[in-house]
Amino acid sequence: MDLAERLDRLGTETAFAVSAAAADWAGRGNRVYPFHLGDINLPTPANIVAAMNEAIADGKTGYCAAAGIAPLREALAANIGGDRGIDLGPANIVVQPGGKPVITKFIQTLMNPGDGVLYPNPGYPIYESQICYFGGRQLAYGYHETPSGFAIDLDQLRALAPQARLLIYNNLQNPLGCESSAGEMAEIAALAVEHDLWVLSDEAYFEMRYSGTSTSIASLPAMAERTVILYTFSKKFAMTGWRLGCAAAPVPVAEQIAKLNTNDESCTTHFVQSAGVEALRDPSGSAPILAELERRRDAAIDALTAVPGVHCAKPEATFYLFPNVTEAVARTGFDTVTDFATAALHNTGVSFCTRHHFGTAQAGEREHHIRLAYSGISAEDITEGLGRLAYWIASR
Amino acid sequence: MDLAERLDRLGTETAFAVSAAAADWAGRGNRVYPFHLGDINLPTPANIVAAMNEAIADGKTGYCAAAGIAPLREALAANIGGDRGIDLGPANIVVQPGGKPVITKFIQTLMNPGDGVLYPNPGYPIYESQICYFGGRQLAYGYHETPSGFAIDLDQLRALAPQARLLIYNNLQNPLGCESSAGEMAEIAALAVEHDLWVLSDEAYFEMRYSGTSTSIASLPAMAERTVILYTFSKKFAMTGWRLGCAAAPVPVAEQIAKLNTNDESCTTHFVQSAGVEALRDPSGSAPILAELERRRDAAIDALTAVPGVHCAKPEATFYLFPNVTEAVARTGFDTVTDFATAALHNTGVSFCTRHHFGTAQAGEREHHIRLAYSGISAEDITEGLGRLAYWIASR
Repeated sequence: MDLAERLDRLGTETAFAVSAAAADWAGRGNRVYPFHLGDINLPTPANIVAAMNEAIADGKTGYCAAAGIAPLREALAANIGGDRGIDLGPANIVVQPGGKPVITKFIQTLMNPGDGVLYPNPGYPIYESQICYFGGRQLAYGYHETPSGFAIDLDQLRALAPQARLLIYNNLQNPLGCESSAGEMAEIAALAVEHDLWVLSDEAYFEMRYSGTSTSIASLPAMAERTVILYTFSKKFAMTGWRLGCAAAPVPVAEQIAKLNTNDESCTTHFVQSAGVEALRDPSGSAPILAELERRRDAAIDALTAVPGVHCAKPEATFYLFPNVTEAVARTGFDTVTDFATAALHNTGVSFCTRHHFGTAQAGEREHHIRLAYSGISAEDITEGLGRLAYWIASR
Repeated sequence: MDLAERLDRLGTETAFAVSAAAADWAGRGNRVYPFHLGDINLPTPANIVAAMNEAIADGKTGYCAAAGIAPLREALAANIGGDRGIDLGPANIVVQPGGKPVITKFIQTLMNPGDGVLYPNPGYPIYESQICYFGGRQLAYGYHETPSGFAIDLDQLRALAPQARLLIYNNLQNPLGCESSAGEMAEIAALAVEHDLWVLSDEAYFEMRYSGTSTSIASLPAMAERTVILYTFSKKFAMTGWRLGCAAAPVPVAEQIAKLNTNDESCTTHFVQSAGVEALRDPSGSAPILAELERRRDAAIDALTAVPGVHCAKPEATFYLFPNVTEAVARTGFDTVTDFATAALHNTGVSFCTRHHFGTAQAGEREHHIRLAYSGISAEDITEGLGRLAYWIASR
C-alpha cells in the first residue's frame, strides 16, 4: 500500500531541523542563543485576550461562516484598505487560520498545472513547496546584495516573466529583511500588468517596521484587480500561535478561497476572530512589541559589527538579518555554511538558519549568508550570543 | 484572467443555503425552528476554557509543532487507543484544526488521481467534494431503510469494491443517525482487507451515543494498519467553533499529514491544544451535554410520531434524525422534497435539510427523506416546532 505520488512533490520548512538541533543541544545541558525562530517571545496584548474571553462567555464557541465573521471581515477591509490606500469591502476578505494558508489557497485558486510561477529565492520555502505540489513550474528569481541590503534581480525577473502566469512577491522580505525601492516595485508591477500575471503579495511584515511607511504593490495602477494580499495578525500583535490572518482578494477569487475554507478547516476558530476585531479596534498593544524588536535589532546590528568576517546592512523592517558570512566561513576553515552553522552552535550556542533553508541556491551564487531572527531572543542575549560568536571566529 | 480549472471539481456544503434561507425568513420577522444546523448551542465546559486561559498566561501564544503539542498527542493516543482497544502512540497522532481537515489530508496522502474511492451516499458532502477535487473516481455506496434505521447496501459495496483503492466509512452516520451491526462492520472490514483498501473511519460521533458502546473499525483484525481515524473535540465537548481534532493514522501516513500541516495552517491554535489536554484529563463536562441531547432526541422522536405521513427510527447515536417523509410530501401535494422543505419553512418556521444536501440521489431512490439536527434547538422548541409541522401537514 503506497502513499500518494503527489507527496513526492511536497516540500517543507527545513528550518525545523535547526530548531530540533538547537533543542537537542540545549537538552544536553548547553546554553543556546536562539536566532533560528521566526516566532515572537512576547505576550499578546491583554485587550485581545480579554476580548476573546468575552466572546467565549457570549457563546461564540460554535461554527461560524467559512469566510469569517462579518465584524472581522469589515474591520479587516477597513484596516487593510485604509493602510494601503486601496478600496476593499468585506466581500474581498476571507479569514484564514494564519497568513500561511493564503499561499496554498492562492496557488489552488489561480494556478493550473504547468503554469509558470515567479517566486523569490532566497524566500519563504512554502512558496516553492506549494508551486511544485500542485504541478506548477518553478521560476525562481534572486536578489543582489547592495550597500543598504538586497535588491531584486530585475534582469532575471524580466527574462523569466514571459513564461509566467503568476508572481509571488514578498516585500519586507523573509529571510532578507529587505524592501523594494519605489522604482523596483513599479517595475515589478509593470511586468505583472504587461504579462497579465496574478500576484500574491505576501505582506506578513507590512506593519513590522521601525521607520518610514510600507507600500503595497496592490496600490499601484491596475494591480488591485490582479493581487491577492496575504495578511496576518501573527507578527503585529505577537499572535503567531493564535492562527489568524486573511486573504484580501478580488471578489471572484475571495469566493473560491472561501469555498476551499468550507472544504478544509470549515472556519477559523470563532472566538479568535472576535479577538481579531478587538486587535484592530485598539491596536495600541502593537507599539511596545515593535519598540522591543527595534531594541533587539539595534543590539544585533551593534554586535555584528564586532564579528570578524561578517557584514550586514541595517534593515528598517521585519525582524530578520541576513548577514554575509563569506569571510567568516573561510576564516573558520569550513567548506560549507551548513558546517559553519553546526560548529557555531556547538562552540558558542548561537543557533541560526542559513541561506539553504530558503530555497535551492541559484546558479552562480558564491557568497555565504545566514539568517538571524531576533524576535525570539532578548537584547541582552543577542549581545551575549553574538559576542561569543565574535570571540569564536576571532580565535580560529 | 481565468481561475484555476481544478475549481470546477470542488464541491461545497449546500446545507449552508438552508441556513441562509432560514436566516432570511427570520430576518423578515418570522419565528424559525432551526433543525438544519449540525452545530451545538450549548456552552463548552468551564474547565476547558480555564485551561486555555492558563495556557495563554503561560505564554502558549507562539507557534508549536506542526503535528501538535506533545502532551496533546500523548493524551489523544491514550484516549483514542484506550476507547477503541487499539495500540496508538503519540507518533500516530497529528493534531488538526477540527475533524474536517482529516478528510482532505487523507485524500491527499493516500489517493492518486484515477483511484476509486468508496464513500457513503447519503453522506457528508465534503467526502465527494474532495475525492473529485483531487481527481479520484467516485464510488458511492448507499443504504437500505430498515425497521431500526438504515443499513449499508453491502451488495452494492461488494460489487464496487474491486474498483476501489480507498474506502470512506462513517459509522454513527451523518445524516442518517445509523450505525453498523457487528456483522455489517465485519463484512466491510473483510472487504477492505480483501481489496487492500486504505480506510478513512470518520468517528466524529463516536462518543455521541445514549446507550451501548461504539466500536471502531480500526479495532478489527488487520484494520489498524490501513485505517486513518478522524477524531474531533467538536461534538463531545461542544467545541465546534474551537477547531480542534486529529488524525490517528499509521506512522508513515501521520508523518505525511504533519508535512501537509506545515504547508497549510502551520499548526493548530497553540492554547486551544492545551485546552484539549484538559478536556481529555477531565471529560466530565461531556455528560451533561449528552444528557441534554438525549432529552432533545426523545422530544423529537415523540413529536414526530404525531406528524402525519412521517416515520422515523429512534437512533441511539449522533444528534441527527433522517425521517422518511414520502407520504407527507405526497399528502401536501409537492413534487419534490425541496419544495416541501421550503413550504414547511414558510408555513411553520421549521427549517431542515433534505436528502439532497448529502449527495446526489442514487439510481432507483423513490422515497423522500429529510434530516433533522436537534443539537441547536431546545427540547421545548423541538416539541413546538414539530407540533406546528404536524398541524400544517394535517391541515393540507
